[in-house]
Amino acid sequence: MQTKQSAHQGIRIDDLRDVRMSVVWLNGDFVDQSEARVPVADRGFTLADGIFETIKAVGPRPFWLSEHFERLKAGAVKIGLTIPFSEHRISDAIDRLLAGATVDTPSAIRLTVTRGSAARGLWPKDAASQPTCVLTAAPSPATHPQDFVVCRSTRRNQHSPLSRIKSLGYGDNILARREAIERDVDDAIMLNTEGHVACATVGNVFFRIDGAWITPPEADGILPGLARNRFLKELGAVEASISADMIRKPDAGFVCNSLGFSQIKSLDGRGLPGDLTAVPIQAVYSP
Amino acid sequence: MQTKQSAHQGIRIDDLRDVRMSVVWLNGDFVDQSEARVPVADRGFTLADGIFETIKAVGPRPFWLSEHFERLKAGAVKIGLTIPFSEHRISDAIDRLLAGATVDTPSAIRLTVTRGSAARGLWPKDAASQPTCVLTAAPSPATHPQDFVVCRSTRRNQHSPLSRIKSLGYGDNILARREAIERDVDDAIMLNTEGHVACATVGNVFFRIDGAWITPPEADGILPGLARNRFLKELGAVEASISADMIRKPDAGFVCNSLGFSQIKSLDGRGLPGDLTAVPIQAVYSP
Repeated sequence: MQTKQSAHQGIRIDDLRDVRMSVVWLNGDFVDQSEARVPVADRGFTLADGIFETIKAVGPRPFWLSEHFERLKAGAVKIGLTIPFSEHRISDAIDRLLAGATVDTPSAIRLTVTRGSAARGLWPKDAASQPTCVLTAAPSPATHPQDFVVCRSTRRNQHSPLSRIKSLGYGDNILARREAIERDVDDAIMLNTEGHVACATVGNVFFRIDGAWITPPEADGILPGLARNRFLKELGAVEASISADMIRKPDAGFVCNSLGFSQIKSLDGRGLPGDLTAVPIQAVYSP
Repeated sequence: MQTKQSAHQGIRIDDLRDVRMSVVWLNGDFVDQSEARVPVADRGFTLADGIFETIKAVGPRPFWLSEHFERLKAGAVKIGLTIPFSEHRISDAIDRLLAGATVDTPSAIRLTVTRGSAARGLWPKDAASQPTCVLTAAPSPATHPQDFVVCRSTRRNQHSPLSRIKSLGYGDNILARREAIERDVDDAIMLNTEGHVACATVGNVFFRIDGAWITPPEADGILPGLARNRFLKELGAVEASISADMIRKPDAGFVCNSLGFSQIKSLDGRGLPGDLTAVPIQAVYSP
């Protein structure tokens, strides 16, 4: 599979068919992944000063695009960032990245926007100079039932507005995931600084307790996930704080994000055998 | 001023004299700043998965280098990261970046280490593949007395190990700095999630209350700054939690980091007129 490209001219659109995984849209140009680089002075690299969205696609079709744009814009407002391209332009680039995809192939599009390159300093005068905007495509991970632990190594900070937007700062989530793997399970449930359940490392969490589906409210330090919003409605779930005591009670649970759904098979070694056949997974994950 | 370079061959060491501000050491090679780029898949860019140090230099001489390496290594252990070059190699690169510097010119060297490029996922199997290591030099900011506010927009998370290492995730500090500027002062004092004073946005804080110098302990969510360690000893300061009530009491205060020292002229509009002539600034900032 050949792609004709140069660092200056980018890749011709006609060359994009079937090559999306190795092509990156970077500040308006399609470039080969091997050439897709950002300056070491980019504030996304130096200070995690940016936001992103992860968008599910099946074949050539991205899911929930307008809602992803809404959330991206809300995050941008919170950190005072300008999105450097129109939704139309980004949407068109996503379509082109996906154009060669086989109809049933799931993929994950990541849209990243950072404040771009700037001189030293947390808020230099030229901080808003020229934001960086990147689209990448990757195979979508298969989801399957997973074993969880409650994270001990770190906590989610519900006092930070960043806990409610998709900021680049994923350090705590990485610590939690690493702890889970070291403890021989798949993933971790993160508590907030008050000890209430917040979320999993890359998704929102729902538990069924005494027959009712419950998920933590935004105030507890969670990203308001697009799949979460749908499950809330479809399940008639309740938003309520989940204390450390309560997480020993559920008979069923799951984690969800825009890419997919994972049953919580066990939590801290206790099985959650509850039946999930009534959970409307198909209804939620429709374009 | 000319630099001979190509993206492939790097810059010859002989060309480095007097050009350090426009030269970057990237994974073992000196490259012109305009060519110093990292892949968009670098986990420093995508997930803030890395750490850094900011090192003061005066002329050709870096300050406190072995302590910076110690702290970098401690941070690397906490996040499970391998430093890809020896101290000797990095130290040599710093010397070369500084070689052309005028004897009295202050500069700031930044050493950044990230987990490097990897496939999607918080902890993919190849996460530890090849870390990225970058050295940049910049003019050191002049320090001067500053007006502060107590940050309202976010909190420091003392429950996270990342609050005690120099992680790339500076989003909360950026929010706090931006709030300070919007409130027409220079900088902000950040509280932790319990409402105790933690630090300023890029430095540790010391207050004089009833004649005693006090600085928050590590447990309150602060980076153990190298200048802080020195001021603690030189001032005979006490490490103690500083409540929101107590921060209305100091008659003097300052913020310090490895690059320098700033008097706190006012806090939330209340002047701190106390005399700082006895603070041993010269003794602390010696190589």
